[in-house]
Amino acid sequence: MIQVAINGYGTIGKRVADAVRAQPDMEVLGVAKTRPNFEAETAIEKGFALYAAIEEREHLFEEAGLDIAGSVDELVADADIVVDATPSGIGAENKSLYEEYETPALYQGGEDADLVDMSFNARSNFEDAADADHVRVVSCNTTGLSRVIAPLREEYGVEKVRATLVRRGGDPGQTSRGPINDILPNPVTIPSHHGPDVETIFDDLDIDTLGMKVPATLMHMHSLNVTLEAEVDAADVRELFADESRLFLIPEHMAIDGSGKLKEYALDAGRPRGDVWENAIWEDSISTVGRDLYLFQGIHQESDVVPENVDAIRAVLGEADAEESIETTDETLGIGL
Amino acid sequence: MIQVAINGYGTIGKRVADAVRAQPDMEVLGVAKTRPNFEAETAIEKGFALYAAIEEREHLFEEAGLDIAGSVDELVADADIVVDATPSGIGAENKSLYEEYETPALYQGGEDADLVDMSFNARSNFEDAADADHVRVVSCNTTGLSRVIAPLREEYGVEKVRATLVRRGGDPGQTSRGPINDILPNPVTIPSHHGPDVETIFDDLDIDTLGMKVPATLMHMHSLNVTLEAEVDAADVRELFADESRLFLIPEHMAIDGSGKLKEYALDAGRPRGDVWENAIWEDSISTVGRDLYLFQGIHQESDVVPENVDAIRAVLGEADAEESIETTDETLGIGL
Repeated sequence: MIQVAINGYGTIGKRVADAVRAQPDMEVLGVAKTRPNFEAETAIEKGFALYAAIEEREHLFEEAGLDIAGSVDELVADADIVVDATPSGIGAENKSLYEEYETPALYQGGEDADLVDMSFNARSNFEDAADADHVRVVSCNTTGLSRVIAPLREEYGVEKVRATLVRRGGDPGQTSRGPINDILPNPVTIPSHHGPDVETIFDDLDIDTLGMKVPATLMHMHSLNVTLEAEVDAADVRELFADESRLFLIPEHMAIDGSGKLKEYALDAGRPRGDVWENAIWEDSISTVGRDLYLFQGIHQESDVVPENVDAIRAVLGEADAEESIETTDETLGIGL
Repeated sequence: MIQVAINGYGTIGKRVADAVRAQPDMEVLGVAKTRPNFEAETAIEKGFALYAAIEEREHLFEEAGLDIAGSVDELVADADIVVDATPSGIGAENKSLYEEYETPALYQGGEDADLVDMSFNARSNFEDAADADHVRVVSCNTTGLSRVIAPLREEYGVEKVRATLVRRGGDPGQTSRGPINDILPNPVTIPSHHGPDVETIFDDLDIDTLGMKVPATLMHMHSLNVTLEAEVDAADVRELFADESRLFLIPEHMAIDGSGKLKEYALDAGRPRGDVWENAIWEDSISTVGRDLYLFQGIHQESDVVPENVDAIRAVLGEADAEESIETTDETLGIGL
């Protein structure tokens, strides 16, 4: 059994912990947190061993009546691999800790690409992680773009990608984020960082991205244009995508008009936290004009990278090939059902 | 003096009335409204002659203590031209009334293109309105796209336009519109109607548009890609746009990050209703990658068509050429200051 440490138990970390626990070949050795809050309470209730990410704050957990299993150093030393799910930039600060104990580590998409040996997307470059000790699971938006681009490149060839990312202002729990009643070009400069980030997955790809922020919290929405190397019928693209387990084509008859109904559907289906791990592509939006392909896809910022983290664990440790790993992850989580 | 009737005194009609009154060569003969409300009150206070758009409802105005100058038939009969600013679809119902009195008429962008003799954008096809009796001033989004495309076509040639329109859910006064906290592909199918609508202005243009709706009321936001026929420096495009009075380039030093600050600026500047008649283009966003031009522009849905309506009046009646009319309209309203 692979012993997994999870450093950071927030939006991503808590989801990765649950997903790892659901795997037949992995165990959660423990989770580390900087301070006691409702998520720390839940970790204990779920039976996860809780570690203090900062030694000087151990007493805060004790004062809150939460048992601490030890320090993050002990957790990292004992683990086969660490999933660093700390806020952007903190992963970079933690790297020396993981190096000290020679524990391979996964980082999240908020870290710089040059912090790590490789940037990871299960569908696109699983095998390249075999020789890497420090791997970055790319961000939710980059993951969403890569999952669509990979099959298109393989099947038709891609001349150019142009994407407008209409980004949620913050996650549902981020009460201090904005905007309210506004639409912000964000960043104002073009391209946004997403295009170069996708190029860490496909280094020969021509992609320009534009970002905005709007007053919504549920999901991002991509307006995607891919100029293919061949003229293709939209129906063929739909068929191609239907074979991809992490692309969910929303059929018209479901009458899902936006993120709200999509999340409601995921909750009704009994998914944990109402997570939407797949790219949610509006099937009716898949259109072609000559070699130009267009579509809308919703990207659930809180969860689409979760199965990618699970696969990256196996990829780094050489415990499975891409097909086996993706299949196991999908089956245990209920992806593509 | 051109005697202008304005049928419909809502978001657009009330603004056109004020703009017409500001012209040296026009007078507002009267405005017609279907029912008494705060806008009818304001019309009276401003000294506009108020006509009942529906005869059977005249008594409602009387009961509200508002003096009615007559029926809409009388208004249309006496006018040199009618600006129909009624809700989408009502303009089509009104056409026979204007024909009955042989009064030329302007319609708004919500009407079908085939209702009229030509679709109008002052910058792009002013002179073509000379022989038309029924003219459609294209919608706010189509106006915004046309104003940018016209100079680019003239200067560099345009191979293809791809635009994502992130649309405000409703105007500030439209209390029953949505979405709240959501991002909707809208329409889900591609292209949205905007692309074909821009082709009513440039009939040989290749343009694909995608629409979304978000929880904002202040302005639309366009994420625009134009593939030019030549490679161009972004600096040259900025210079080209700087010469266009109805393109406002937002300089970085203004620190305007979205629609909210832009409207605040317009209000601080003392503009009536805080209107932004120009396309508001973030100067920093103007970027080129090879022949691909990208930019973000804010489009004030309530007001950008107002100067276009004023110019269309002169264009239809043959009272000025494009340059004279645009200059007069801009100067009287304070556009491009």
